[in-house]
Amino acid sequence: MSTEFSITHRVLFAETDMAGIAHFANYFRWMEHVEHEFFRSLGLSVSMQHEGLHVGWPRVSAGCEYFGPLKFEDEVELKMRVVKVGEKSFSYEVDYLLAGRRVALGKTTSVCCSLEGGKMRSIPIPPQIREKLST
Amino acid sequence: MSTEFSITHRVLFAETDMAGIAHFANYFRWMEHVEHEFFRSLGLSVSMQHEGLHVGWPRVSAGCEYFGPLKFEDEVELKMRVVKVGEKSFSYEVDYLLAGRRVALGKTTSVCCSLEGGKMRSIPIPPQIREKLST
Amino acid sequence: MSTEFSITHRVLFAETDMAGIAHFANYFRWMEHVEHEFFRSLGLSVSMQHEGLHVGWPRVSAGCEYFGPLKFEDEVELKMRVVKVGEKSFSYEVDYLLAGRRVALGKTTSVCCSLEGGKMRSIPIPPQIREKLST
Amino acid sequence: MSTEFSITHRVLFAETDMAGIAHFANYFRWMEHVEHEFFRSLGLSVSMQHEGLHVGWPRVSAGCEYFGPLKFEDEVELKMRVVKVGEKSFSYEVDYLLAGRRVALGKTTSVCCSLEGGKMRSIPIPPQIREKLST
Repeated sequence: MSTEFSITHRVLFAETDMAGIAHFANYFRWMEHVEHEFFRSLGLSVSMQHEGLHVGWPRVSAGCEYFGPLKFEDEVELKMRVVKVGEKSFSYEVDYLLAGRRVALGKTTSVCCSLEGGKMRSIPIPPQIREKLST
Repeated sequence: MSTEFSITHRVLFAETDMAGIAHFANYFRWMEHVEHEFFRSLGLSVSMQHEGLHVGWPRVSAGCEYFGPLKFEDEVELKMRVVKVGEKSFSYEVDYLLAGRRVALGKTTSVCCSLEGGKMRSIPIPPQIREKLST
Repeated sequence: MSTEFSITHRVLFAETDMAGIAHFANYFRWMEHVEHEFFRSLGLSVSMQHEGLHVGWPRVSAGCEYFGPLKFEDEVELKMRVVKVGEKSFSYEVDYLLAGRRVALGKTTSVCCSLEGGKMRSIPIPPQIREKLST
Repeated sequence: MSTEFSITHRVLFAETDMAGIAHFANYFRWMEHVEHEFFRSLGLSVSMQHEGLHVGWPRVSAGCEYFGPLKFEDEVELKMRVVKVGEKSFSYEVDYLLAGRRVALGKTTSVCCSLEGGKMRSIPIPPQIREKLST
């Protein structure tokens, strides 16, 4: 599958730590950010009503490898590519690019769930959503 | 009113910024932390069912004055005191103490609300909750 | 003084809380975000070398009033205006606008400091920086 | 290697998201928290002077698997175990336990670095530090 989608993010002061670099946990927030903008670009939302169900995407795994630091005001490109759209799950990778050079690689898998009465239950990805994610 | 309540917090690495000190926005998270522990100490929660209502406490104002920095691994005492329990609102202050010296002063006011069907509506503080907050 | 400067921010999923709205502490990160973009727009940085000094701007106070909630994916305009450029201090306000309606009002004051050997010392705002902030 | 070390953490309101559960990125902050408390328990710090060097531990990878949600006020036990102390690297896992049941599993690898003049350089883990980490 070859879907790719990019946003850029300028590293905020609040995202740095006393080592003078972006704190590693922020990469996971950014990973989610590009994912959600990807959903938006498809006319979807990670928190949406679909045929009477409230559909969400809790994560089952998330990981990141770090190849070099990012600093305050660095403009990082977050380039996401869909890796797999399974029956119930959705996997993608994110390249973190600084001036075209990969400084980190993120991976995550989410599961499509309905939320009813505070309970999450995994469900097959609805066909209309699957179709958009797979394009 | 003289209710006081304290917790301690050791400044986390993730809470520092590139200036080498705790980032100012964290003081608001800590302010909320001591508030919630205060509620817990009274057998309450900031998100609770009370006589069939879901009661919450959205903020109407929050502020902090900073007198000196906090660093990684500093153990800060968060000493909260109730300033006012109004008909619908609740105000308190927090002293941020490092080795007994005040390094910051926080203030906040919340309003008692019921949450029904995703809508918040301000309500008079229920008597049983008021009584506990006012002790 | 009438300097105004705006950015927009779309509320992130990670910025919401279990009440379904943007958590109040995030407003302080956004306040800082617009401030830093304002500095950037002037060719300045909140962490910069100036005539051999490392100049920074620690906060002495920050506050926010909340008039209504913000939700996931809301696009909020952060409109900043400079309120005062004192001898050593810099004060501004931020309107948080949702579809043109003010949902919050932030205020903060920072002090110009030099950082040498891990020590912060307040200094008069250098003339070239003052001139830009005051335009 | 069998070193284990535990702390507990009560999920904060600010750590929840609009899905009503702890946001997944927080698990990485908690992972770091137990790591740092482990270092402290050994008389070490993740940011320390050692024989004239400033020694730090930037991450090369971090990951987490999620088996079930955590909610506001849940008390989660963070049980860390050292997996490997390499020549320059340090790897550990963290079990996230809710009432004894594993709700998540975190893994991370850091590299020992000296920080001189703003530059990080990987170095062999100093023997005295290695000895403590390996106990």
